[in-house]
Amino acid sequence: MKVVRAEIIAIGDELLYGQIMDTNSHWISQELDLRGVKVVRKTTVGDDRKDILAAFSAAESRADLVLITGGLGPTQDDLTKPLMAEYFDCPIEENPEAVEAVTEFFKKRGREITPLNILQGHLPACCTYVPNEVGTAPGMWFEQHDTYWMSMPGVPHEMKKLMQDFVLPKLPVLFELPIIVHRMIKTVGIGESWLADLIRDWENALPKNIRLAYLPSLGHVKLRLTGFGTNKAEITEAIAQQISLVLPTINEYVYGYDTETLETAIAKLLTTKKKTVALAESCTGGYISHLMTSIPGSSSYFQGSVVPYHNQFKSEIIGVKETTLEKFGAVSEETVKEMATGVRSLFRSDIGLASSGIAGPDGGTESKPVGTIWIACAMGDQVETKKLQLTQDRLLNIQLTAVAVLNLLRICFSKI
Amino acid sequence: MKVVRAEIIAIGDELLYGQIMDTNSHWISQELDLRGVKVVRKTTVGDDRKDILAAFSAAESRADLVLITGGLGPTQDDLTKPLMAEYFDCPIEENPEAVEAVTEFFKKRGREITPLNILQGHLPACCTYVPNEVGTAPGMWFEQHDTYWMSMPGVPHEMKKLMQDFVLPKLPVLFELPIIVHRMIKTVGIGESWLADLIRDWENALPKNIRLAYLPSLGHVKLRLTGFGTNKAEITEAIAQQISLVLPTINEYVYGYDTETLETAIAKLLTTKKKTVALAESCTGGYISHLMTSIPGSSSYFQGSVVPYHNQFKSEIIGVKETTLEKFGAVSEETVKEMATGVRSLFRSDIGLASSGIAGPDGGTESKPVGTIWIACAMGDQVETKKLQLTQDRLLNIQLTAVAVLNLLRICFSKI
Repeated sequence: MKVVRAEIIAIGDELLYGQIMDTNSHWISQELDLRGVKVVRKTTVGDDRKDILAAFSAAESRADLVLITGGLGPTQDDLTKPLMAEYFDCPIEENPEAVEAVTEFFKKRGREITPLNILQGHLPACCTYVPNEVGTAPGMWFEQHDTYWMSMPGVPHEMKKLMQDFVLPKLPVLFELPIIVHRMIKTVGIGESWLADLIRDWENALPKNIRLAYLPSLGHVKLRLTGFGTNKAEITEAIAQQISLVLPTINEYVYGYDTETLETAIAKLLTTKKKTVALAESCTGGYISHLMTSIPGSSSYFQGSVVPYHNQFKSEIIGVKETTLEKFGAVSEETVKEMATGVRSLFRSDIGLASSGIAGPDGGTESKPVGTIWIACAMGDQVETKKLQLTQDRLLNIQLTAVAVLNLLRICFSKI
Repeated sequence: MKVVRAEIIAIGDELLYGQIMDTNSHWISQELDLRGVKVVRKTTVGDDRKDILAAFSAAESRADLVLITGGLGPTQDDLTKPLMAEYFDCPIEENPEAVEAVTEFFKKRGREITPLNILQGHLPACCTYVPNEVGTAPGMWFEQHDTYWMSMPGVPHEMKKLMQDFVLPKLPVLFELPIIVHRMIKTVGIGESWLADLIRDWENALPKNIRLAYLPSLGHVKLRLTGFGTNKAEITEAIAQQISLVLPTINEYVYGYDTETLETAIAKLLTTKKKTVALAESCTGGYISHLMTSIPGSSSYFQGSVVPYHNQFKSEIIGVKETTLEKFGAVSEETVKEMATGVRSLFRSDIGLASSGIAGPDGGTESKPVGTIWIACAMGDQVETKKLQLTQDRLLNIQLTAVAVLNLLRICFSKI
């Protein structure tokens, strides 16, 4: 089976100057890799005619599929469209469908369309117009010079939609792709090297056609199992078998598989057990509430939250005793317990979660340095608490605490 | 003055598969840009002999300086060193200084050195050995084929130290560098094409040595002015002059310059005017509170917030009248006004902000489709409100609403 080669070209001065980080190429390469397409080159060029044309030419000699992001805006420094027309020697013409789509896009938002935007509906005659439902610049698909080309806007969410709706579904139609099956085991609450130690024997015994990759991120470690072969059902079964072999060793850390996130896993737990939750967030400032409410349908288990950013509001709004605050301080086990039970009463929820700590970079003392954070989960008669000692980085501390709170909730559920 | 051109090559299969995001190239390009070196190309290749040699060859034809990261580990798939030796046709020899450094590195950490690691002290005879104090693989500097080359490890903190200690100081010695000055004007609340229309005449009248780039992102558009020349003070003054020329046309949309974010701009406004704020977030679920509390020192102006995710809590906790909810519904101007004034009372703050809407993807009706969101800002005797009609994407709606609320606060301040 011939290997299908792809090249990714990102266009934009702002990428070369380092003003913007290119996350698009990274995302695209992950999606291609999942489907058995081999990315052979990633290239970043500026808004320069000679450089862009040279990049097109070089890509064509190396790849079967060329994915291009950027340079499609309505202003003078957006060169992708005219240069692709020049490169394929075809004229730019009004595309009625595209013009209508751009006009509609503006109408829906109650805005007048500008002449520059109407021009976004004018496309190279030799391309296939690919509608962009979440932006003004259309995608353009070309089959030229024995190569497939897709031009997309540089705005990440627009690029992703075009990839998901148009490009990725096309791949198995255009190419004969190897069978690759991925499964992801999602763990939380254990570091990468400890996890590796736990599962070393199992990892060393994996069959040749199944590979393991560790993908650590904030407070999580994903274990990705990748199987190769010619029969999808067989590979799928083989991977499932390997998962059942390793699960007993790591079960307490596993919160889900594949696309499950900690938030969706929590959402499932709350829905299945018909429990509701309320949050009192001090140092995390609303971040955990945001994570939970990012899930559609969260109103069925999320009652609400309070961010009592000063001590008097911990007392006035969620009922933490003033004597507790005076005696132990805001960042203490006693206070965070009362925050959890108090917010549970306020919102009449089944569960109360709370965080209180010193996110930094200032505010630390010798006994309570930056990164000292207490969290609590009030469920039934119990209140589980945990003390975290994190980093010097404010944002990191907020994010790590959020993971710890959701994990604490998960652990609480496993005990009832 | 001749423009000094640089190319950045990142080597590694894990970059092409998307397993690791290449942050090195981004960082290097920022550092080069600050010093007036023009990055003309960024390239990512895999651990493949043909592709790497092709990348070297192409880079040489385009750049005066080639910076290479990756492929310097001690294992079989680390090809950079043998391939650079091959490319420059010089033998690899033991470099006693380098061998000693590698041995010391292991000794200091109480570890045995392996034969593979000793080989890391064997370098191409035609290179200059550049010590790596924080890792095992040395840097290598070449002056070959009328081009300067630096090979560095892919580990970010090792690369940064070699750049900071060796490469960056060399640049003004090797090259006559132009002076490049960037300024960024940050705008919010106006789309890219409308902005372009507003400033077209000014843009067309810009002097030859000042270029403009539009950098749009969620709800924002950054205008980047880049000036080139031989005298830093002159360019800086010229850009400042251009900014003062365009400002009257766009002033109501400008919230800051350069590294200012909307959150830090709001923080400055609140601090300067000695005002405090509290938030009532329904559909945004804590996200705006999170943005505001991500700023260190925010407790001096942020009193707290409530996420009253169900109607009864809008009444019970922040005092929205039940009759208002019954008559107009949660997603209405009337309700969001009472949310803003109510949370202001609860937290005894100067300003109350509120959001209430249908983030989606479900919950829409004919009269109030998904993306219908009301926001309010209560300041003094006034309550400013705004109705948004956004997208079908829940997360996008949350993020765009946050920008709109912060912008509403900014606009409110401009009226007092």
